[in-house]
Amino acid sequence: MTFVPDNLIADVAAGTSLRQAAAMAGIELKSACGGEGTCGLCLVRITEGRQAARSAGGNVAPRRRREGYVPACRTSVQGDMTVEVPEFARLAQHRVLVDKIRSREVLTEEEADVVGRFGLQPLLRRLTLKLDCPTLTENASDWARLVAALRREAGLGALTFTAGLATLSRLPSALRRGEWEVTVWLMGWDDIPAQVTVVDVAPGQPTGPDLGLAVDIGTTSVVTYLVDLEHGETIAARGTFNHQAHYGDDVITRIIHASEAPGGLGELHEAVVETINELIDGLCLASGVSATSIRTVVASGNTTMEHLFLGLPPDFIRLEPYIPLAVEFPIVTAGDLGLRTNPSALTRCVPSVASYVGGDITAGVLVAGVAESDDVTLFIDIGTNGEMVLGNRDWMVSCACSAGPCFEGGGVTHGLRAVPGAIERLEIEPDYEVRVETVGGAEPRGICGSGLVDALAKLREVGIIDRAGKFQKVDTPRLREGPDGPEFVLYGQADAGAASGDPPVAREIVITEADVKNLIRAKGAIYAGIRSLLGAVNLDLQAVKRIYIAGGFGNYLNVRDAVRIGMLPDVDPSRYRFVGNTSVKGARAALLSRKAFETCRELASKMTYLELSAGRGFMEEFVSALFLPHTDLTQFPSVQG
Amino acid sequence: MTFVPDNLIADVAAGTSLRQAAAMAGIELKSACGGEGTCGLCLVRITEGRQAARSAGGNVAPRRRREGYVPACRTSVQGDMTVEVPEFARLAQHRVLVDKIRSREVLTEEEADVVGRFGLQPLLRRLTLKLDCPTLTENASDWARLVAALRREAGLGALTFTAGLATLSRLPSALRRGEWEVTVWLMGWDDIPAQVTVVDVAPGQPTGPDLGLAVDIGTTSVVTYLVDLEHGETIAARGTFNHQAHYGDDVITRIIHASEAPGGLGELHEAVVETINELIDGLCLASGVSATSIRTVVASGNTTMEHLFLGLPPDFIRLEPYIPLAVEFPIVTAGDLGLRTNPSALTRCVPSVASYVGGDITAGVLVAGVAESDDVTLFIDIGTNGEMVLGNRDWMVSCACSAGPCFEGGGVTHGLRAVPGAIERLEIEPDYEVRVETVGGAEPRGICGSGLVDALAKLREVGIIDRAGKFQKVDTPRLREGPDGPEFVLYGQADAGAASGDPPVAREIVITEADVKNLIRAKGAIYAGIRSLLGAVNLDLQAVKRIYIAGGFGNYLNVRDAVRIGMLPDVDPSRYRFVGNTSVKGARAALLSRKAFETCRELASKMTYLELSAGRGFMEEFVSALFLPHTDLTQFPSVQG
Repeated sequence: MTFVPDNLIADVAAGTSLRQAAAMAGIELKSACGGEGTCGLCLVRITEGRQAARSAGGNVAPRRRREGYVPACRTSVQGDMTVEVPEFARLAQHRVLVDKIRSREVLTEEEADVVGRFGLQPLLRRLTLKLDCPTLTENASDWARLVAALRREAGLGALTFTAGLATLSRLPSALRRGEWEVTVWLMGWDDIPAQVTVVDVAPGQPTGPDLGLAVDIGTTSVVTYLVDLEHGETIAARGTFNHQAHYGDDVITRIIHASEAPGGLGELHEAVVETINELIDGLCLASGVSATSIRTVVASGNTTMEHLFLGLPPDFIRLEPYIPLAVEFPIVTAGDLGLRTNPSALTRCVPSVASYVGGDITAGVLVAGVAESDDVTLFIDIGTNGEMVLGNRDWMVSCACSAGPCFEGGGVTHGLRAVPGAIERLEIEPDYEVRVETVGGAEPRGICGSGLVDALAKLREVGIIDRAGKFQKVDTPRLREGPDGPEFVLYGQADAGAASGDPPVAREIVITEADVKNLIRAKGAIYAGIRSLLGAVNLDLQAVKRIYIAGGFGNYLNVRDAVRIGMLPDVDPSRYRFVGNTSVKGARAALLSRKAFETCRELASKMTYLELSAGRGFMEEFVSALFLPHTDLTQFPSVQG
Repeated sequence: MTFVPDNLIADVAAGTSLRQAAAMAGIELKSACGGEGTCGLCLVRITEGRQAARSAGGNVAPRRRREGYVPACRTSVQGDMTVEVPEFARLAQHRVLVDKIRSREVLTEEEADVVGRFGLQPLLRRLTLKLDCPTLTENASDWARLVAALRREAGLGALTFTAGLATLSRLPSALRRGEWEVTVWLMGWDDIPAQVTVVDVAPGQPTGPDLGLAVDIGTTSVVTYLVDLEHGETIAARGTFNHQAHYGDDVITRIIHASEAPGGLGELHEAVVETINELIDGLCLASGVSATSIRTVVASGNTTMEHLFLGLPPDFIRLEPYIPLAVEFPIVTAGDLGLRTNPSALTRCVPSVASYVGGDITAGVLVAGVAESDDVTLFIDIGTNGEMVLGNRDWMVSCACSAGPCFEGGGVTHGLRAVPGAIERLEIEPDYEVRVETVGGAEPRGICGSGLVDALAKLREVGIIDRAGKFQKVDTPRLREGPDGPEFVLYGQADAGAASGDPPVAREIVITEADVKNLIRAKGAIYAGIRSLLGAVNLDLQAVKRIYIAGGFGNYLNVRDAVRIGMLPDVDPSRYRFVGNTSVKGARAALLSRKAFETCRELASKMTYLELSAGRGFMEEFVSALFLPHTDLTQFPSVQG
């Protein structure tokens, strides 16, 4: 059985329920009835092999039934099938994405530091005012009375105030129900000087927190932080897979869907909004707050994701000369986007730099403080694309290179995202025996990005592959001829049996020669990007004082192995720092500080974008990097030694 | 048969079709099939006496059928009934409202003068730009490229540009379809300095005009002008009854409906939007333009109407101390309001002054140029309320007094709006014989405001009523005892028979003693308002150099009679000027000139509002004015003489 979108596999006996099978694959489903089929929560959809299912009834809401859902507890397996497990039926399974990131962060101190650097001056401000009661002679309108009080009492005399119709509509009753004591929520940005939006009004002094939502919209996963705007505290965090994955794994496929499928742009827009909405529901449930307390939203993502989040056509991002519609986006209300926060919550994206250097990178550069130092820093975010920024206080140059999906579990035979059961570390002994470590310590089901970097380094170390990635003749049963050519068994029947005495593993995990070639191309692209950036500013690697590695991949990466395969530069390991998901952290900083948001705008406009496809420099660097570690061994002295 | 909302009556033979009956009542219905029942255009709704109708089939769209419509040409009359004739089924019948106003305007020269005074600098501006084609190295985003060109080529360097998501969405294809030649529509106001909204974009140099819609939202009727923004020409004008009338005739009833009926506010909002939409359809049909050419809207109306137009709750306008939600309103898109113009057309209301001095008065003061003269001017708009402004270049004071519905055809026995068949002028001979003139020369069906003023003056002149409005014993069969006390027959069986020899008139038209008392209260309120304004600034009538009479009523008013009954001040008639519908003209001026809009804002904030219910001054003036012409005859020397 295969469970999607996780791509987890379970080998189960005929008659096993889909709910049990999912649990064996590491996916816990919601349930309130304990498998009696009455609560209607553990819903899944059989996408392939429907004829191999046996149903024993069970409760499914009519709408869900029409959508093809069946109750996992009342449906049993009789043969091969593929089952889609929707986010809404999962028991908080994906929080791991966020929790892992948080527990392994290196920048925790720097993170608190952001508030220190920019000050706690949230985009949203709450004020309670006592207004004079109107009389026949003091008969200014409600709005004029409020504005006069804001100017007078709150010292905002020089500002212009605006409010949307929905907020205005609530003003008369708020003033009178509060007997002319009223609380207002104000939002302002430094780049729209002298103008403040009254986002909401309420009678008296309402209790309850003012919250902001920081959103990192990744192509693969979406991560949200719920932030208390008064104290700067992150009260809950949650992540899940981006539902847009249904329309394709990478940005290019999604752009094509948005451009060419009828209604495709709307589908992608709704998919990401629904992803965020599910996270909002979960955040509110977990922290016991009302979604209407969420009064402002800052989102950051790659340029395509920001377009799709706002429903803007990203068509020309994928076509030479790769032009986005915009890199700075208008302020919209959450209600207009369909977000299930307070509908009047103003929503803004962190500005992007160019088609392939997005707001997530701007946010990362903010969090890493690249532009606050005299020293030159290299900031790298490795995913399907490798985005990187090189610079200091005076200048910044950025670029993006296509690494392909290898490091996110795609494009290699047994690739898997960093979900439980994915091999994230491995060792190969001189006798070719293999030791693996998996995410969550679960039985190995595949291999994720950091495991692949390890595998490549270790295969080379013990001589199974040569510098070009070609398999050598080595005497071990792990090296064999597979259906696609030579392959090396990382985890086989023997490994499972030896470890536990349990029944044979569901499938073996191998790495093929073709996988190795793919990995070499991926690591070569990253390294060539770094070299191109350095070349563009005519700098030597030794000038780079710090290298920040951002993104989910970065958290698990073995730097020494990444250097050994020639993916990352061979400098003193102490120069490397893992900074985790700087996209969501930067969005959070922008929520907490107008100055941080303004700094994002400055950073985005300050970064020079280097289009690697213009000119031959990148291609030459790339070709040189297609060896382990590189054609020019002098660039990797520690590996050579 | 009674036709509503016109309140027109027709006496027809059994078997007459509703279409013929409507024509006899002066209402022409649309038709494309000549009465064959196939075109589905001449739809009406029988609101009373449905059992008296006979149907012979005919085509009606299913939606209209569900709404209760029947084809007028295929439905015949067998007895008394009341038939509602919807605006959409009328053959431009209500253009009379506009055409009459236009043909009788006194200010036609001043109207053209507005452009002279403020300059033709429309709120909306169209620009065509040639952009540089992007390359791999010149790869700014589409929006950044557009803004750079606007700054450089259009000399708008100091401005900030914004655009909504809908407009942004169209940018990439517009740029590429036009091969980097693009036309943009920009809107800006002087009170939001340095910020310009890009309202729309289109490839190349599209043809077709740029139009603006000026809307006067009256409680009773709505009038629209379609304006060519390039040349300042009004290309079409159209008016109709405000569909809100369904929910009550006056603002107070409508506020109660908005406040207390579930969904009432939405109903009133939709009713006025639908009224305007029908007018837009008609304007576009008549002038052969597309509604998408309408790219900006300025609306003016009384304060309650502006609230309802925007869907804002007007609840507290009717409750002491009479506080509106706002007097200046946010800029919204036509799409958000539901207007059938270009959905991105920005829509703004002319600022109001207070709960009972609205944007229509601000617009009137603009058009009349009250604040442009050293001389003191009195501006009066007489409808259900009498709103007036007194002032000059240095100061302005305004007030509103409740005149009741008399002058708009309500609250008197045979009152009628100024529709065809309404008596608008009359003479009473010394022998008590009566000569009447009706709107459109049709058979008399009722009496409108100007006819009532005439009637009051003439009844007093020939001695039928005394100074208190009490009927005297006079020897004429026209004076008789009616069901509600004494009444005077203005138009009876004898008048009709004598004139034409036709069958007897459908109904006689009388004026009762109660009607006379109502009229005296109405005229007394107007005069007391004028006196209160003068008193507030301690000025004598002789200081007032010009008196402007605005509003539909003003067009038909006999000033000499209005002075005789003590409604208007007894000054040299040459000081009076009729200025027609200054509300729609002011809205038009604001469309054509940013400076005019800005002047409206200044005027509204400059006008001091005098709340007549605060203090006893008004009440004393009112009581003194409840005689014909007044208790103090020295105030009316020409009448005394």
